[in-house]
Amino acid sequence: MIAIDWGTSALRGALLDRQGGVLQERSAPLGILHVPPDGFEAVFNDLFGDWMRPPSQVALMAGMVGSQQGWQEAPYCPCPANAQDIAGALRWVQPGRIAIVPGLSCQHAGLADAPELAQVPDVMRGEETQILGALAATGLKDATLVLPGTHSKWARVRAQRIEAFTSYMTGEVYQLLRQHSLLARTLPPLDDATAADDEAFEWGVQRALQGGGLLHTAFSVRTLSLFRQVPAQRLPEYLSGLVIGEEVRQHAPDPATPVLLVGAPALTARYQRALALAGVQARPLEGSVTWAGLWQIARELDMNA
Amino acid sequence: MIAIDWGTSALRGALLDRQGGVLQERSAPLGILHVPPDGFEAVFNDLFGDWMRPPSQVALMAGMVGSQQGWQEAPYCPCPANAQDIAGALRWVQPGRIAIVPGLSCQHAGLADAPELAQVPDVMRGEETQILGALAATGLKDATLVLPGTHSKWARVRAQRIEAFTSYMTGEVYQLLRQHSLLARTLPPLDDATAADDEAFEWGVQRALQGGGLLHTAFSVRTLSLFRQVPAQRLPEYLSGLVIGEEVRQHAPDPATPVLLVGAPALTARYQRALALAGVQARPLEGSVTWAGLWQIARELDMNA
Repeated sequence: MIAIDWGTSALRGALLDRQGGVLQERSAPLGILHVPPDGFEAVFNDLFGDWMRPPSQVALMAGMVGSQQGWQEAPYCPCPANAQDIAGALRWVQPGRIAIVPGLSCQHAGLADAPELAQVPDVMRGEETQILGALAATGLKDATLVLPGTHSKWARVRAQRIEAFTSYMTGEVYQLLRQHSLLARTLPPLDDATAADDEAFEWGVQRALQGGGLLHTAFSVRTLSLFRQVPAQRLPEYLSGLVIGEEVRQHAPDPATPVLLVGAPALTARYQRALALAGVQARPLEGSVTWAGLWQIARELDMNA
Repeated sequence: MIAIDWGTSALRGALLDRQGGVLQERSAPLGILHVPPDGFEAVFNDLFGDWMRPPSQVALMAGMVGSQQGWQEAPYCPCPANAQDIAGALRWVQPGRIAIVPGLSCQHAGLADAPELAQVPDVMRGEETQILGALAATGLKDATLVLPGTHSKWARVRAQRIEAFTSYMTGEVYQLLRQHSLLARTLPPLDDATAADDEAFEWGVQRALQGGGLLHTAFSVRTLSLFRQVPAQRLPEYLSGLVIGEEVRQHAPDPATPVLLVGAPALTARYQRALALAGVQARPLEGSVTWAGLWQIARELDMNA
């Protein structure tokens, strides 16, 4: 099979053998934002046409390729959902040959007295495939998974089924405060190479865990600089700790349930430290799990065939 | 006396009679960001020179004119502080004639095990004068005052003394989310005249008061639009409710202590609604109170003279 991760900014693909092992990988800077609406098939054929020659070859694609701005919109599959449910909700762009993995939706309890908000939806697109891959890679059936990023996801998995999840705009709010807020005047320029500063990061996490809320604690980036209590070079890491710490505080994970962290090592290491300060053990998963997730979905197709 | 409010974007002044009544007012779009570092005296003389002719005339200036980017830096006066303390900490740019009112600082408890953050400072500049004016206008000696804005301030006053205060970056975070975040793509263009929408605002406040945290709840602006549950035109007000509601939830004001709201009517009305949903009665104060605040400080000078 061919496993494809087609996101906003990049396109990656892998040719997998019959055991899910990677035979070959390719990538291009052709995220969906760089492809015209009618250009997806051509880009696909250019990059993966030769891999598709065997008539029984199947390609599964995860990520924003299934959004309204993608190749075709793959409607969200409602939670709870497991690999089988997701395989049954694939959006086939070429029947039997090329399919898009749907994102997931779930509902949070909203306002009892407002029908429009009785339920408030949440969504993910791409992370569902990483979760399936992480479960396969670890053999876990029950877990809390955290996928940090622009919009972090916390997912609750029971019996290999994604029951519900919660999004946090953590990465994006950090960037907004870092680059566009009045705090940016206090902080060193973005292109200054900032050394890693675990201590300053942990100060931020601890401040966040004390409560007070990010709307308040973020202001301390300015005042600590104003009174020269903390050098400006240390404040970006402190701010990062405040924002990630706020996410951890709000989610208030149960220390009794182990957390699996899925994502880039630099980011999962931060979350591991922040969770440890909140008394929660978390284990980062090394390496990409998207291919493993697509392989799980493909296995469900084989079983149904 | 002459009362002056010299902020970031505007310069306003008033000539007051011996009872604090306003005889005349003037203003110019000459906030401190529009004045070169050595240009403050010339701007002052241009706009207020004739008012200063009586040899005993005194001008008091509040606002960012006392910041590092202002005429002269007026170091923050530590809390607790009342009108007398502030009068004693004036920064005289022309001895006996022209003075800058210092901002206030206070300390929040920080991290016991990190000397750099054992105390975390908070600051205001300009709001201290409004608070003194609001106390004079209402006759209150004990109150919680809320001054909404880019960086909202909640101040605790006992026996006419500002004991402590807390800043929230509410107005700024709203603007960042409204204009620069991924949510902005979901929301109508900024120049679309949005009709007031109390219901959508209150939905946002109620969602915020349920908890979950702004990092999470803000994401619902996107999902409610994605699933067409709430029309895009209603979402800016919903987002405003989420952000202001988060501030109210975090501050968790005691319903037994009445709240006095000081600021622009459009903004204080929002806070009044948000506080009501949290079970807190709040009273907006009509009109500007900066002249009344400067008058209180000037009275302290007279008493000391």
